[in-house]
Amino acid sequence: MPETNNNLLNETASGVYIISATPFTEDGAIDYDSADSLVEFYLGKGVAGMTILGMMGEANKMSSVEADTFMRHMLKRVAGRVPVIIGVSDPGFANMAELAAGSMDAGAAGVMVAPMAGLNTEEKLYAYFANVFTALGPNIPVCYQDYPLVTGVHISVPGFNRMVRDFDQLVMFKHEDCPGLSKLSGLRQSIVEDETLRRVSILCGNGGLYLPQELARGADGAMTGFAFPEMLVQVVDLFERGAIKAAEDLFDLYLPIVRHEQQPGFGLAVRKETLRRRGAIKCAAARAPGPKLSAVDHKELDGLLGRLDERLKDLN
Amino acid sequence: MPETNNNLLNETASGVYIISATPFTEDGAIDYDSADSLVEFYLGKGVAGMTILGMMGEANKMSSVEADTFMRHMLKRVAGRVPVIIGVSDPGFANMAELAAGSMDAGAAGVMVAPMAGLNTEEKLYAYFANVFTALGPNIPVCYQDYPLVTGVHISVPGFNRMVRDFDQLVMFKHEDCPGLSKLSGLRQSIVEDETLRRVSILCGNGGLYLPQELARGADGAMTGFAFPEMLVQVVDLFERGAIKAAEDLFDLYLPIVRHEQQPGFGLAVRKETLRRRGAIKCAAARAPGPKLSAVDHKELDGLLGRLDERLKDLN
Amino acid sequence: MPETNNNLLNETASGVYIISATPFTEDGAIDYDSADSLVEFYLGKGVAGMTILGMMGEANKMSSVEADTFMRHMLKRVAGRVPVIIGVSDPGFANMAELAAGSMDAGAAGVMVAPMAGLNTEEKLYAYFANVFTALGPNIPVCYQDYPLVTGVHISVPGFNRMVRDFDQLVMFKHEDCPGLSKLSGLRQSIVEDETLRRVSILCGNGGLYLPQELARGADGAMTGFAFPEMLVQVVDLFERGAIKAAEDLFDLYLPIVRHEQQPGFGLAVRKETLRRRGAIKCAAARAPGPKLSAVDHKELDGLLGRLDERLKDLN
Amino acid sequence: MPETNNNLLNETASGVYIISATPFTEDGAIDYDSADSLVEFYLGKGVAGMTILGMMGEANKMSSVEADTFMRHMLKRVAGRVPVIIGVSDPGFANMAELAAGSMDAGAAGVMVAPMAGLNTEEKLYAYFANVFTALGPNIPVCYQDYPLVTGVHISVPGFNRMVRDFDQLVMFKHEDCPGLSKLSGLRQSIVEDETLRRVSILCGNGGLYLPQELARGADGAMTGFAFPEMLVQVVDLFERGAIKAAEDLFDLYLPIVRHEQQPGFGLAVRKETLRRRGAIKCAAARAPGPKLSAVDHKELDGLLGRLDERLKDLN
Repeated sequence: MPETNNNLLNETASGVYIISATPFTEDGAIDYDSADSLVEFYLGKGVAGMTILGMMGEANKMSSVEADTFMRHMLKRVAGRVPVIIGVSDPGFANMAELAAGSMDAGAAGVMVAPMAGLNTEEKLYAYFANVFTALGPNIPVCYQDYPLVTGVHISVPGFNRMVRDFDQLVMFKHEDCPGLSKLSGLRQSIVEDETLRRVSILCGNGGLYLPQELARGADGAMTGFAFPEMLVQVVDLFERGAIKAAEDLFDLYLPIVRHEQQPGFGLAVRKETLRRRGAIKCAAARAPGPKLSAVDHKELDGLLGRLDERLKDLN
Repeated sequence: MPETNNNLLNETASGVYIISATPFTEDGAIDYDSADSLVEFYLGKGVAGMTILGMMGEANKMSSVEADTFMRHMLKRVAGRVPVIIGVSDPGFANMAELAAGSMDAGAAGVMVAPMAGLNTEEKLYAYFANVFTALGPNIPVCYQDYPLVTGVHISVPGFNRMVRDFDQLVMFKHEDCPGLSKLSGLRQSIVEDETLRRVSILCGNGGLYLPQELARGADGAMTGFAFPEMLVQVVDLFERGAIKAAEDLFDLYLPIVRHEQQPGFGLAVRKETLRRRGAIKCAAARAPGPKLSAVDHKELDGLLGRLDERLKDLN
Repeated sequence: MPETNNNLLNETASGVYIISATPFTEDGAIDYDSADSLVEFYLGKGVAGMTILGMMGEANKMSSVEADTFMRHMLKRVAGRVPVIIGVSDPGFANMAELAAGSMDAGAAGVMVAPMAGLNTEEKLYAYFANVFTALGPNIPVCYQDYPLVTGVHISVPGFNRMVRDFDQLVMFKHEDCPGLSKLSGLRQSIVEDETLRRVSILCGNGGLYLPQELARGADGAMTGFAFPEMLVQVVDLFERGAIKAAEDLFDLYLPIVRHEQQPGFGLAVRKETLRRRGAIKCAAARAPGPKLSAVDHKELDGLLGRLDERLKDLN
Repeated sequence: MPETNNNLLNETASGVYIISATPFTEDGAIDYDSADSLVEFYLGKGVAGMTILGMMGEANKMSSVEADTFMRHMLKRVAGRVPVIIGVSDPGFANMAELAAGSMDAGAAGVMVAPMAGLNTEEKLYAYFANVFTALGPNIPVCYQDYPLVTGVHISVPGFNRMVRDFDQLVMFKHEDCPGLSKLSGLRQSIVEDETLRRVSILCGNGGLYLPQELARGADGAMTGFAFPEMLVQVVDLFERGAIKAAEDLFDLYLPIVRHEQQPGFGLAVRKETLRRRGAIKCAAARAPGPKLSAVDHKELDGLLGRLDERLKDLN
């Protein structure tokens, strides 16, 4: 039975929306027990929301049926405790709309859409999203995923603002361009310069690598999958309370791991292994084809996690 | 009930394997009536084989269930009259293997696999295909789709030959690099220089744009979706019979259309519209998001097709 | 002594601006004798203008000093008989401006600039060209080279029109996107819809592969390096006189060669060899590293040129 | 007068080869006074070598003449105190060879070459470097720059080892792939598995972002332009003496800045501004077109540098 959906995503969203991994068994099946423990792990760390079926969630390696089943399972487990955003990016609008509608029926707060590869001018990008919004209909809140490293699609400040003006259901910007700090400042400057422009939520990705800088520039939080969500939560919280120095000090403790996880592609294996070591999931395997850690990689991770442990002890 | 599968793809495949479009209705549903008429259209033009669920077939805009259903429908309609190759490229090996196994059970002759984006060295490419072959098992004949314009993945002559040596189920090379003529010559030269190297079938793509040159350099035929398959069939046939001049004369008649259809992305709309005008399908629409013809595009196509008609009349 | 420069490039430019090859000797030196004969060859075919130091001119393999010397040599040889455009694209504005100023002093009609790689939004692209126009100053007429296959930079119709409105010295669009026919129609439609918008000259590249379609859609001519400039000249001329069918008939005769030359990278070797065979230059070598023709490639070219000869004989 | 060149680069090179910025004045001229002070700044921090005319050195925005003049100036100023490597990457072999020969005559220790864009198979890459080595001759030591983020060209462990076996003048690998840690381990594992394989020097780039991990995996040092070379020098030194924990502790102090400088493109402006604040150069401007810091960027940098100062004070 679907959750009642009185918690639609809107422009005021803030805090940490953790991007959830998808746990698999060694033989590649979805591990629903680990999915449950992972939900409890994330919620136990104080996240404000959750995003599933994102790129980090290996959604493109699931069949349509698996994605639907996993989505329903996760929404049922979260059970309305925090809003859940569903990644619905798809080469075809029909499939995108079907997953989106099913997700909202099942209690999702909104959906995330990344532009299709090949949208190489902002005219094409605007037309694409105009069609996305038509396909999804006016009632589904949408987060725009700005992740050019993977999509190859770029958007400028005026280009995004044009969409904000024209599409009310666009309520969130997932900021993951790199370098992207000046774009973030530009987006926030836009609403100063034009008071009629709607202020949308901006949550930051890139594994949190620039989180303090992004919060200082006007981000509302993070949407990323760092394996220590409690750091992201505390940093955002400290920032909100004005304790900037404390926030940066805490961030810097974890920075060596943040940086290590942020290696493109390979970082997923590091992240899932760290989640496994922390007891959040039973098996660290990515679905094939996917990255794997070698013995050297494991030892390296031992060292980095060991150093973090010691620093955290020193802190207390 | 699956066809008995006594017609597995092998290294001797030659002639024209037409890449089939997937017909949709105006509202985006798969048009199975048109699928049937399209099969008869292709077979009526004398093609030696058929490939479905390729890039041109808009496979990435179908759900897993749709792809499976369409595959079974097409195999049933073809009913063993020609061998059918199924495109099974997928970001995940499990889905790829499932579609491949289902296809072979349903009577397919083999499968086609394009490398995943991001395989940026031939070491990674080899490792990827080693895993593909493991995932598919030793009994499914495979065609390697070499289409770097879309995949961004490149393979050299020694890189492909290494796979031929190591994987017996690799029986066909779909040649679609551009420029790719020297690679084609290199592949054929390899079997002259090393008699132990297995000679695989090479069928050419690129809409047939270099077909006479490719046949002269040792290709065994074409695997492409040109909307006038009869030209491809006759050119290949004339070449086989040594009537090179006649083959080139015929090819040149159609070259303005070949070139027009070969515009990346946009060409799909031209091709489907031409198939519609020829009575092969009822509706030319590509699934959204997809290219559409404007009024100017239609008029331009009128002109090009009109010129072809006149030339064909002159010929007779 | 520099030519007096009373023939600045402007929006009315039309006809064929041939992109000149740069002739080298076997050991890689600039072959100035062949440069002279090449100029006479081009002018003898009736071209309306000439473009040097373009991508096809291997400008990036010349030193700054060589480029300057070659530019002066060519301008002196042309001696004002037709307008000459100088390619001045450069990673640095200072070098770009220096070559541009030197060229105009030496009698050039204008310069051509392609956007630097990495301009991945039209905001960045606009800002880049605003700086280019500042660096060049208001008195140098500029042709925008839209060649995304090589630059990776894309521009939309509104994006280009914005530049036309803001920069008077932008007088020409070299149209070389592919597919690009709808962009061309869009640019011409813009001046119908907005009468205040300046109409700039549009000359087409892509080796002439879509020349009849482009002329029908409002192009003013061609700017490309096809080794049979007389075909381009006659087709543009026939089109202007309304003899569309004759234009297309002539074009189609050459289309197999046009297509053959249009292979990315490799085509340069085909083109220079064809120029050599036609007596325009003494040596077909591209500067290292560059493409070379194998024995098979030579034989293939023999065949294609032989077929053209026969068709031209049939014509007369 | 050229230095006598008794210090040719070889496989034993280790430590920190700083990549030198090129200082410009506000109006874009090369600032030779700042070049001198920058040399003294770097040498004063204990670097083992220096690399000039790299990508970070904005070499592509200099004319051939400027590059030659700057190279001679820098070599004269360094005056043999440390070996200097000259970046000679160029689209043309003739220009590359001329700069390389001039550099060696003027006292350089060796040259660095990055592969040309478009070398999309290792076969092409090998052929390219075979021609590079021929063009440079056997007496110029070469560092291979593996920087696919910028070049788009990828090399595997077997691909690099093949070059090491075939070209004696290849003595160094600049490791700048990302993620690249497993490649680094693979290169070092190769010489364990094949004792006949020459061990070349490996210096790491990426701004030092993974320096401790890279040293642990067998790198011999760093070749990057981080604005605090003393950190790189000390970390490498501590590692060599086995003081791993101390090395990592020191590294982590600077990591927020390392990460900040490592933003693609934008990082150059951060780096030059930091060098300016430290008194190494007079003006932070990059040559146009280049990145610039906004007021917000400056304030952000204030904060990051302020935090570093405090941490360094705490350390002492």
